Amino acid sequence: MKLIDSVTRMSTLAGILRKEGKSIGLVPTMGYLHEGHASLIGAARKQHDSVILSVFVNPMQFGPKEDFDRYPRDLKRDARIAAEAGADIMFHPSADEMYPQRYATYVNVERLADGLCGSSRPGHFRGVATVVAKLFGITRPHAAYFGRKDAQQVAVIRKMAGDLNMGVKIKVMPTVREKDGLAMSSRNAYMTERERADAAVIYRALRKAESLVMAGQRSSRRIIAAMAQMIAGVPSVKVEYISIVDPEEMSELETVSSDAIVSVAARVGRTRLIDNIEVKG
Amino acid sequence: MKLIDSVTRMSTLAGILRKEGKSIGLVPTMGYLHEGHASLIGAARKQHDSVILSVFVNPMQFGPKEDFDRYPRDLKRDARIAAEAGADIMFHPSADEMYPQRYATYVNVERLADGLCGSSRPGHFRGVATVVAKLFGITRPHAAYFGRKDAQQVAVIRKMAGDLNMGVKIKVMPTVREKDGLAMSSRNAYMTERERADAAVIYRALRKAESLVMAGQRSSRRIIAAMAQMIAGVPSVKVEYISIVDPEEMSELETVSSDAIVSVAARVGRTRLIDNIEVKG
Repeated sequence: MKLIDSVTRMSTLAGILRKEGKSIGLVPTMGYLHEGHASLIGAARKQHDSVILSVFVNPMQFGPKEDFDRYPRDLKRDARIAAEAGADIMFHPSADEMYPQRYATYVNVERLADGLCGSSRPGHFRGVATVVAKLFGITRPHAAYFGRKDAQQVAVIRKMAGDLNMGVKIKVMPTVREKDGLAMSSRNAYMTERERADAAVIYRALRKAESLVMAGQRSSRRIIAAMAQMIAGVPSVKVEYISIVDPEEMSELETVSSDAIVSVAARVGRTRLIDNIEVKG
Repeated sequence: MKLIDSVTRMSTLAGILRKEGKSIGLVPTMGYLHEGHASLIGAARKQHDSVILSVFVNPMQFGPKEDFDRYPRDLKRDARIAAEAGADIMFHPSADEMYPQRYATYVNVERLADGLCGSSRPGHFRGVATVVAKLFGITRPHAAYFGRKDAQQVAVIRKMAGDLNMGVKIKVMPTVREKDGLAMSSRNAYMTERERADAAVIYRALRKAESLVMAGQRSSRRIIAAMAQMIAGVPSVKVEYISIVDPEEMSELETVSSDAIVSVAARVGRTRLIDNIEVKG
């Protein structure tokens, strides 16, 4: 596996791969890889001649009081996992490479980026959309792979790629979970063993929502109330939001009428976690 | 010359051209072509296997009180001029093709887009950057050609293309002028014969600036004052701004120390005109 930290080298190589008629799959990550990332690399491996993993803890998508500084980083470990999972290239630029002096350009996806995580993390999705636009420009992928755990991110990126006619297919892979259902996340590393055990209530609440919908419940208000009650039973887990939204537009649904995403953000100690589940009304 | 109005057809064709190893030059315009546009097509013709002219009066870059509705349009004439100048494809999508229902994505170039035309036309350069990002996505050009008359537009697009790693070279061609020096513009068609004659004072004022700089004048304030005085001699021409700026960042220069752009926006009757000249301090 090739390690590349220069934007120019990466974009030159992507240009060569394109000229050779190679199909390129991109897996954009912030590193500290886990099985979820490995599954994205594996999915890309099956579809493309060249699989590029990008590892970049993007300062633009962190708020001033967020965890940019303490976000876990381990490039050596990432390189080992990426190579094992089947990546051909690990692109890991510095922030100065990505945002040189007098950087000025931002991509905004309106509406979809406003609710859910967008309201508690202002500017977050602007940072996500901008860095993904840049990564698409640098690596010229035919398709890019994302985990379903970040449902709003997926919706924002899919909208951006379509709206700006980027010609990149957005592929969404199932959330990979721990045995107790907790969604894999690099941020899980922040938690104590106790917090880690408590955090499993988030997925239990999502499964509760699923079973309520399967039993015929269509009222978002009632489903959300049942979930909130369940999570309240674990006092270390503080709900930031529970929302039931349309998967494309991320707009709140009063009634679960067709496809919907039940989405949770919660804090366990200092750790902010998100998760979601798809339901069919 | 091929006429294409479908975004899907255009992007499919661009993909095929790319796969065949063809070099693509794009000339983005709002149509109602004049000799300036023809010179851009000619320049692209010399460098590329395929020359695409886009004709799209982009509603996103017009303010609510601006001239979107009366902007001159004549696709037949455009097609004739484009074919004569050497274009292979004229891409002329509808606004619904470019901005379908639930369109949500906008590209902002900060700083550079704030001053000059940006302050009198809020949102204008957001519309320009967004549509150009889309046109780059659809037509996949190796290079795109713009006229120097729109100096701030060129700076904004060049910054965007670099910041978002679009891999598109931005080529800037000299302003083509009428015999009396008036910069060619589709908007010149708005003017009466009398206004048309009066408008020539704009270029005379720019030449005045040039001769002052050549004579050693370095104070932007003094150069601007001399220009304003000259234009004031033609009462039908109302100055909106006269600015001396850095060509890359479009920031105002108090002193003409190295490369600078002397830029004018003025109204002649209902017609808003812009022009500029490069000077070396």
